[in-house]
Amino acid sequence: MTCGEFDLITRYFNCSKNKRPDVQLGIGDDCALLAVTDEQWLAVSTDTLVSGIHFLPEIAPQDLAYKALAVNLSDLSAMGAEPCWLSLALTMPKVDERWLKAFSDSLFEQLDYHGMQLIGGDTTRGPLSLTLTVHGHLPANKALTRAGAKNDDWIYVSGTLGDSAAGLAILQKKLAIDNAEDRKRLIELHLRPKARVSLGLALRGLANAAIDISDGLIADLQHILTASQCGAKIELDKLPYSDELQRYLDVEKKQGWALNGGEDYELCFTVPECNRIALEKKLNHLEVKYSCIGSITSEVKKIHFLKKGQSVEIKAPYLNHYGFDHFAVTTVDDESK
Amino acid sequence: MTCGEFDLITRYFNCSKNKRPDVQLGIGDDCALLAVTDEQWLAVSTDTLVSGIHFLPEIAPQDLAYKALAVNLSDLSAMGAEPCWLSLALTMPKVDERWLKAFSDSLFEQLDYHGMQLIGGDTTRGPLSLTLTVHGHLPANKALTRAGAKNDDWIYVSGTLGDSAAGLAILQKKLAIDNAEDRKRLIELHLRPKARVSLGLALRGLANAAIDISDGLIADLQHILTASQCGAKIELDKLPYSDELQRYLDVEKKQGWALNGGEDYELCFTVPECNRIALEKKLNHLEVKYSCIGSITSEVKKIHFLKKGQSVEIKAPYLNHYGFDHFAVTTVDDESK
Repeated sequence: MTCGEFDLITRYFNCSKNKRPDVQLGIGDDCALLAVTDEQWLAVSTDTLVSGIHFLPEIAPQDLAYKALAVNLSDLSAMGAEPCWLSLALTMPKVDERWLKAFSDSLFEQLDYHGMQLIGGDTTRGPLSLTLTVHGHLPANKALTRAGAKNDDWIYVSGTLGDSAAGLAILQKKLAIDNAEDRKRLIELHLRPKARVSLGLALRGLANAAIDISDGLIADLQHILTASQCGAKIELDKLPYSDELQRYLDVEKKQGWALNGGEDYELCFTVPECNRIALEKKLNHLEVKYSCIGSITSEVKKIHFLKKGQSVEIKAPYLNHYGFDHFAVTTVDDESK
Repeated sequence: MTCGEFDLITRYFNCSKNKRPDVQLGIGDDCALLAVTDEQWLAVSTDTLVSGIHFLPEIAPQDLAYKALAVNLSDLSAMGAEPCWLSLALTMPKVDERWLKAFSDSLFEQLDYHGMQLIGGDTTRGPLSLTLTVHGHLPANKALTRAGAKNDDWIYVSGTLGDSAAGLAILQKKLAIDNAEDRKRLIELHLRPKARVSLGLALRGLANAAIDISDGLIADLQHILTASQCGAKIELDKLPYSDELQRYLDVEKKQGWALNGGEDYELCFTVPECNRIALEKKLNHLEVKYSCIGSITSEVKKIHFLKKGQSVEIKAPYLNHYGFDHFAVTTVDDESK
């Protein structure tokens, strides 16, 4: 769907007259939040992955299972929820036992790793697609949402950005990398993104807002800015890149992929100054890289980009996963220069 | 999927090593049962509906929304759960505002009627299909399952059987009924089945086992017999028919549709003799027709059919919803006659 179409659809489905008192947060964040008791909430997220739109048709079943779960776990992570249950609706063109075995082995390996259980679902015949509904637990009122960012909060991202886009470009033969190991690592970062589950749990009580980077930093940060009614200042020099991206790509390309590539499934989160030391201390215990890339401003929905202290303009292209020809992002010097 | 294929798929997905203590019931019943506290359980069910397989491609959007929710509510009803939340994953070939408005209006009307809230989901582009995940509440240890049937339990069904198959046959021009009102009513029973939510709640503590009739009485009763390791005796003369079926169909046809037609979304439940009076008293307060059609026996997985006290044999055809040519069921006199 295009962004416009998506907004339109959201309008039709965001008009429930019946508001249940146990629904703490409905449509519009990474997960719904449901109060099951006074002390305990449930986070629920549903994602559909369609062949040719959300994954390449030739994807290996073990990678598809891994990625489908990671995409959904990432939504739970962004809310600070602890994963517990999965429902899987699988639509397949035909029954292929080898495919099923590889898919289910990979799925159960990941479920077991995260202490989750497959609780049910449905299998139907049709063009390959999957709908996963994941459930996670969290204490009442401890969820991270998109709506909590405050003026002057620091903006952080985990891991490195742009690797998934580079991995996809390699698979699509739009990026050639000679070194086999580097090539393999970037493809793996695309096919097997790590959901930041421990990080999400660590951020509870310290971060004011969080989101997972599925559509690219700009698009996902915009969701925080819209929900929190604030703006942001991003220092482009502080965007975190992998060694591989540093090695093979010029600054324009890697910056474009970091900002708009999407599917990195890192977390972007905002932290008030008073929690900064506590947060960094806590994160140093986790084996997760993190970078402070800017701060929240009061200019609603506006992102200012800075490069070496100077304001620059970024034109974000329309992105259509797996359908786009390029991730081109042009940076234009600010008129004030 | 054929039955064999379905069993095969189930094998691959029913092998979780990780058994969480909060999962009271995983794959294999109408819903999963999840303990959220010591006193409260959650019932969760996921169903996918694919155009041309689970509904006729020309179905009106308001009927599709109604039916998709009813199918899922029926699963909650069969467990005795009280519906609360819905996640909807909708895949559409294109964005059609009129379609979306009709679909969402109908969906919200039903959600409001049942006191439910849409909590999230996903919209993607592709061949029309829907995956719904419904959640329901119930007190701990009060769920109705397929596995509780006991020898000598009475077998009941709600409503009337075979009407949905007749309605589908009319839509497929395989059944001609002159009277416009009767035709309309049968089509409505196919397109807009009523999930037996109040009945499911009423059965808690009185019924030993329950299931909703989605695949036809024989197929669904078999699920109870397999899960409960018992058999059944069904008196064909006691199968409940609507006035319309009585008026237009011969006994073979209406009996075939009652036993194998499917999609009636009535409940089939088993009740011990000691609860029979209490149950019938309770059901008389609800506006739900019910019929006692037989009893549970000790002959594992075997269904005996009786007609006027005589044993008869029924050959159940393989059923593939919307793909079948006929609902033919032949009754063959028992050799002992």
